[in-house]
Amino acid sequence: MKKFVNDPADVVAEALAGFAAAHPELRVDAAEQFVARADVPRPGKVALVSGGGSGHEPLHAGFVGAGMLDAACPGEIFTSPVPDQILAATKAVDGGAGVVHVVKNYTGDVMNFQMAAELAADEGITVETVLVDDDVAVLDSTWTAGRRGTGATLLVEKIAGALAEEGGKLAEVAAIGREVNTASASFAYALTAGTTPAAGRPGFDLPDDEIEAGVGIHGEPGRRREKLRPARDLVRSALDAILEAKPIARDDQVIVLVNGLGATPLIELYLVYGEVVTVLAERGVRISRRLVGNYVTSLDMAGLSITVTRVTGEMLRLWDAPVHTPGLRWGA
Amino acid sequence: MKKFVNDPADVVAEALAGFAAAHPELRVDAAEQFVARADVPRPGKVALVSGGGSGHEPLHAGFVGAGMLDAACPGEIFTSPVPDQILAATKAVDGGAGVVHVVKNYTGDVMNFQMAAELAADEGITVETVLVDDDVAVLDSTWTAGRRGTGATLLVEKIAGALAEEGGKLAEVAAIGREVNTASASFAYALTAGTTPAAGRPGFDLPDDEIEAGVGIHGEPGRRREKLRPARDLVRSALDAILEAKPIARDDQVIVLVNGLGATPLIELYLVYGEVVTVLAERGVRISRRLVGNYVTSLDMAGLSITVTRVTGEMLRLWDAPVHTPGLRWGA
Repeated sequence: MKKFVNDPADVVAEALAGFAAAHPELRVDAAEQFVARADVPRPGKVALVSGGGSGHEPLHAGFVGAGMLDAACPGEIFTSPVPDQILAATKAVDGGAGVVHVVKNYTGDVMNFQMAAELAADEGITVETVLVDDDVAVLDSTWTAGRRGTGATLLVEKIAGALAEEGGKLAEVAAIGREVNTASASFAYALTAGTTPAAGRPGFDLPDDEIEAGVGIHGEPGRRREKLRPARDLVRSALDAILEAKPIARDDQVIVLVNGLGATPLIELYLVYGEVVTVLAERGVRISRRLVGNYVTSLDMAGLSITVTRVTGEMLRLWDAPVHTPGLRWGA
Repeated sequence: MKKFVNDPADVVAEALAGFAAAHPELRVDAAEQFVARADVPRPGKVALVSGGGSGHEPLHAGFVGAGMLDAACPGEIFTSPVPDQILAATKAVDGGAGVVHVVKNYTGDVMNFQMAAELAADEGITVETVLVDDDVAVLDSTWTAGRRGTGATLLVEKIAGALAEEGGKLAEVAAIGREVNTASASFAYALTAGTTPAAGRPGFDLPDDEIEAGVGIHGEPGRRREKLRPARDLVRSALDAILEAKPIARDDQVIVLVNGLGATPLIELYLVYGEVVTVLAERGVRISRRLVGNYVTSLDMAGLSITVTRVTGEMLRLWDAPVHTPGLRWGA
């Protein structure tokens, strides 16, 4: 294994220290291991908390800031944050209007966020949970009952975060988060496996000419191993899977995320986005907004995911609202 | 080779088409192969043009926009743009106040930008060239006489771009660009080589336990092959090289860029930034601003570079000025 680390056991804590130094505009609680906006709690504002295993950066800590998350809880690499950690973040951000937990659908995350929500309730904090399960590749997987949560997490956090920022109530913020999830579908390809510092070797083996179609963000198996095909064919297959799973029709407006899984050059992501444009144009689907880059990664996996979210005008308005985070930033 | 491409010969053109679709706020000239701000030429504004081989994204096309570059010319992968292409971009952006060419110090780039500047002069456009040669690892290299231009290019483009945006004159914009370059030093490590689509295999071979210290952004050899060491040791050696090469002293203010070369997870970059903070604190150097991420890449090379720029108050002010580009964005 070749990585820029010291002791593999210290990677998450040391990276969090570096993150804290790099982002003095945020508040990093090293003891409780969460990242929060500096201005929490904000009285009367619904707060958003997310988290999950580390190794998917910038998700989630990189999405903390005005217009998106109030706090994020990084677990160890590919390991859920623990309930106490989530509870501490929830208490730190609660401004009396309730807290939304955005949870990717992995068994450990679901369990630990649920436990934290119950503990928070005991302390008088109302928590609504938005479960993200957008990955249409497989039903049930290595660490998941049901569909996995992947790229749509970014859209849920951005759009629900914008509504919370402008004063949306707890039920409204949770509702639009769930609507965004329901309206989203993702499909990923891996060219290579990622390597966790603790394991020190790739999470799975792929022959030199094969790819994993429908891979998960922890390297979970997808639909099939197949021979590498031209990008235009891969994109067409991914969009077939997405459009079969979700009722996205001619003249619908969508946001598209072409997301690198960690080791894929940006030039390839742009090339792939061009193919997405071609296929969706054939289907008459209108791409209203798009994002191309590395947002929901899987350490150093070479691969990418495509997420398509059918949006309402209200979702588009909230998407366009200002966001000031390390990983996503626009608007005044 | 496993990449998301169609025909390797079409990668740059197809990626540019995808980039154009992803960034409708910019103007992409597919025939002349350059990317420009939509609002060029801006009468009376000094324009900045850069370019170089593709494969370093988001550099340079990702830095086109308000407050940074007016145009960028992507060459084929790891290949200089041609003079006609640079001339077309220069003519497209010239608003009568002259054009600054920001050129990384590689023989092909220097030659082709110089030819384009002469052709532009024939057409009545005054061009000043800012040469970037911040890589302190080696003197002379595979494609370079003198020192290579790497991470400091981002700082030159940002700071000079900000001065141009607020009305700086041609000589002033070029002067501050040169000052930023002179005040900058970079050092890189490769853990693995990148693979160009055309070659289809890694640009060089590295044993499983060795790294290339002082590597260039096209995989050019550095100072030595060495065994992998803990991140804290690698950072210390890189900063030794940087601080030996540049007179950065106690109480100096610096901007630090910890830059991924393409396949290095963000979590490792943050860990490395934490080590940079420790070492510079020992030396009494004050980090006024920092940037951690993938900005000047080398396709899918696992590796990173560290750039340190000693800044004046004026440079800091210009660094903080608004910038609205696909790859770098802040401010209203």
